[in-house]
Amino acid sequence: MTLKELVANIGIELEDECFEVTGMNTLSDATESEISFVANSKYIKDVANSNAGAILIDEANKDALPDGCVALVVESPYWDMATLSKFFSTPIEDNNLPKAIIGEGTSVSAKAEVANGAVIGKNCRIMAGAYVGASAKIGDNTILYPNVVVYKECVVGNDCIIHAGTVIGSDGFGFASNRVGEHNKIYHNGNVVIGDNVEIGSNNSIDRAVFGSTTIKAGARLDNLIQVAHNCEIGENAVVASQTGFAGSSKVGRSNVFGAQSGVAGHLEIAPFNTFAARTGVTKTVKTSGKTYAGFPFMDHKLWLKIQGKIARLIK
Amino acid sequence: MTLKELVANIGIELEDECFEVTGMNTLSDATESEISFVANSKYIKDVANSNAGAILIDEANKDALPDGCVALVVESPYWDMATLSKFFSTPIEDNNLPKAIIGEGTSVSAKAEVANGAVIGKNCRIMAGAYVGASAKIGDNTILYPNVVVYKECVVGNDCIIHAGTVIGSDGFGFASNRVGEHNKIYHNGNVVIGDNVEIGSNNSIDRAVFGSTTIKAGARLDNLIQVAHNCEIGENAVVASQTGFAGSSKVGRSNVFGAQSGVAGHLEIAPFNTFAARTGVTKTVKTSGKTYAGFPFMDHKLWLKIQGKIARLIK
Amino acid sequence: MTLKELVANIGIELEDECFEVTGMNTLSDATESEISFVANSKYIKDVANSNAGAILIDEANKDALPDGCVALVVESPYWDMATLSKFFSTPIEDNNLPKAIIGEGTSVSAKAEVANGAVIGKNCRIMAGAYVGASAKIGDNTILYPNVVVYKECVVGNDCIIHAGTVIGSDGFGFASNRVGEHNKIYHNGNVVIGDNVEIGSNNSIDRAVFGSTTIKAGARLDNLIQVAHNCEIGENAVVASQTGFAGSSKVGRSNVFGAQSGVAGHLEIAPFNTFAARTGVTKTVKTSGKTYAGFPFMDHKLWLKIQGKIARLIK
Repeated sequence: MTLKELVANIGIELEDECFEVTGMNTLSDATESEISFVANSKYIKDVANSNAGAILIDEANKDALPDGCVALVVESPYWDMATLSKFFSTPIEDNNLPKAIIGEGTSVSAKAEVANGAVIGKNCRIMAGAYVGASAKIGDNTILYPNVVVYKECVVGNDCIIHAGTVIGSDGFGFASNRVGEHNKIYHNGNVVIGDNVEIGSNNSIDRAVFGSTTIKAGARLDNLIQVAHNCEIGENAVVASQTGFAGSSKVGRSNVFGAQSGVAGHLEIAPFNTFAARTGVTKTVKTSGKTYAGFPFMDHKLWLKIQGKIARLIK
Repeated sequence: MTLKELVANIGIELEDECFEVTGMNTLSDATESEISFVANSKYIKDVANSNAGAILIDEANKDALPDGCVALVVESPYWDMATLSKFFSTPIEDNNLPKAIIGEGTSVSAKAEVANGAVIGKNCRIMAGAYVGASAKIGDNTILYPNVVVYKECVVGNDCIIHAGTVIGSDGFGFASNRVGEHNKIYHNGNVVIGDNVEIGSNNSIDRAVFGSTTIKAGARLDNLIQVAHNCEIGENAVVASQTGFAGSSKVGRSNVFGAQSGVAGHLEIAPFNTFAARTGVTKTVKTSGKTYAGFPFMDHKLWLKIQGKIARLIK
Repeated sequence: MTLKELVANIGIELEDECFEVTGMNTLSDATESEISFVANSKYIKDVANSNAGAILIDEANKDALPDGCVALVVESPYWDMATLSKFFSTPIEDNNLPKAIIGEGTSVSAKAEVANGAVIGKNCRIMAGAYVGASAKIGDNTILYPNVVVYKECVVGNDCIIHAGTVIGSDGFGFASNRVGEHNKIYHNGNVVIGDNVEIGSNNSIDRAVFGSTTIKAGARLDNLIQVAHNCEIGENAVVASQTGFAGSSKVGRSNVFGAQSGVAGHLEIAPFNTFAARTGVTKTVKTSGKTYAGFPFMDHKLWLKIQGKIARLIK
């Protein structure tokens, strides 16, 4: 689709076809054949260095665009980005894709579903009720227990164990909202990539990325009922106990350990090798390693214990 | 079944057949052909205005019954209500119902199950492992991702997206208990009604109502791993982040926003257009709009921030 | 397999075959034909009374072993226990087991899967997408709603109702870790045993035991999205509201009541007939009955209310 054809969908009339649009991406990752957007003015600083071929931007900021980048001036760039995201979404399943490739020694239950375009490695076990979506990839020696769901285009590594009911690649919780409170879905055209030797418990929800990938790196261990939001990165050998949640785009370094019912706010970074006690609520980036935290808002674990003591004495 | 036949199951002997009982309901909603109950004396005030044909009530309160209403005097009205609820429960599936009606353009996976009596609209996609129960209704253009379960008699609107593993219409957490701690199941003969243009993430649990409906109104957005208990009402365009829970019968006005891991206690009302930070625990009814809350027990968000500062200084 | 053959897998060379190893177990439960391990020195006190035929132990502690017990001296007994646990794991499914036995009056959906070796009682309903694993046992009159998963060897009693998406018997969250942060899976060769007349809501995760059983006793009621970790014991008639989590090996006495989003730390015991308000975090063993608790760390409910009042006044 040319840029002209695409943006006609949001009421912009361009004179030229401009270029064949290949996708939509963030300001920093977009290439010359992709479009991007300035969701709010704190991202203006990234505009000048963007290689995007065209950018959705509001009137007030349009002068920030670099030379050669087509200005798509709209009232609500975020809303229109949502509207256009649909045009870059592949079909949920696609009969035109080649039949799935199943590696030697792999057993696929007659009650599992493997969509066209999927590739499953050797010696895997895909159990009853499991679903492997369009163009998804599963490595070698991996087990999908009953009713595991891997959405289209997601990737699971070698030697992984995914327990029953876990969902990998459902749409992230993203939408634009207008002043009267209506929401406009942002199609999540990224995926989930799970490294080798990862074990994930039952009934987890791991959402696909808006752009790029939500990643769970090699050796990580996730317990049950965990939420991993869109665009998170969970580091190598990380240990995450049950009912913990990671909000969008947080990056957790390798070998961090999270007690049960913890939470990590969005857009944070956590340095490697820290420990978070059960129910810790991580509200800020953690730049150092080797510490133990607790509480909400989180603090050094020993401080938290002291404060609990003081609070207990308050009552006397 | 006549009232006489029905109440014989709880050891009450009536002389007359009285009337054909059509159902069981709350004191305020019961009609003349329905029976109701007084679970505890705080509901006595609703007895006089009830149109119920018969009411389960204990000896001490029986004089409160209006004229013409049959007194069903028992020791434990709530326990006996639970016992009788079973008699108003429809079968889980029913071969006598007509075959499901599937609208034009709808694809139902060969690995999905659609029970008799179900009606699915046009251009829907019912994916592998999804289940649509007896007499359930799905609107047009709705997607049920793999392994979504819609229990009998529940209703999902048009243009909805329900992600994998979400359960709509499981029985609410309701039972009567006696002094030795045994429980008597209350059959949940209500349903769940989801409006148009609702998107619900993966692995949510949305329970059916005891009587009437649990409702998620048009335009709402639910993330993953959320609990919506029996008889809740989630307003139009509400936004609920992951791992949040709503206890029974709470009514959330339109366009409220809940951060992740929030909780709302039972039987509350929340006015429209408020925001609740992550992990807020809403313990009381909220009558005003436009505010932001945090903490547990919840308070104004700015107050909460101040208190956290004070607590941090306690330690010094 | 003889002990000699078994321990060759972890680089130990024994001169004699010693004995035919029948399993691995805790120090206190291991029999003469089983092996055990000393994970850390706090368990040294249990060594002298162990009947285990052989014990994995480090150099420093090896003199504690009783006469006749074979010393398996290694650097990391816990890591090697994990390595050996795999050899005692039965296959996920096994074609050599006899075909499943289905009791009279039981309906099994054509879209459910019942593995070989399973035994299902009378008058059950096994709905679409449900999975009953190898050698699992289901009692009489029990309902498995769509997409319930019961892993191999687990046991569900009579008159149970298990709601959609609940997973019974997934592997517990257990592994040995080395100094560089790598993890070594501990195969969970125990199971889950659910008593009679238990109702479990939707999307729960109930993990199998390492050794022995995770148990949910007769009459218990679990809501939705609950985590029950390996080796927990939930007592008779216990009531657990949604999104609560129990960490490993905790023993909850009969008729305890947990409000929503509660948590119980690992290796605790809770006496019967206590109540825990929503979001209570139980951090210590509870030896008395009849009390109500709240807060995290938990305390008497009335104290917690007082402290909340004091904290609120802090701000003024």
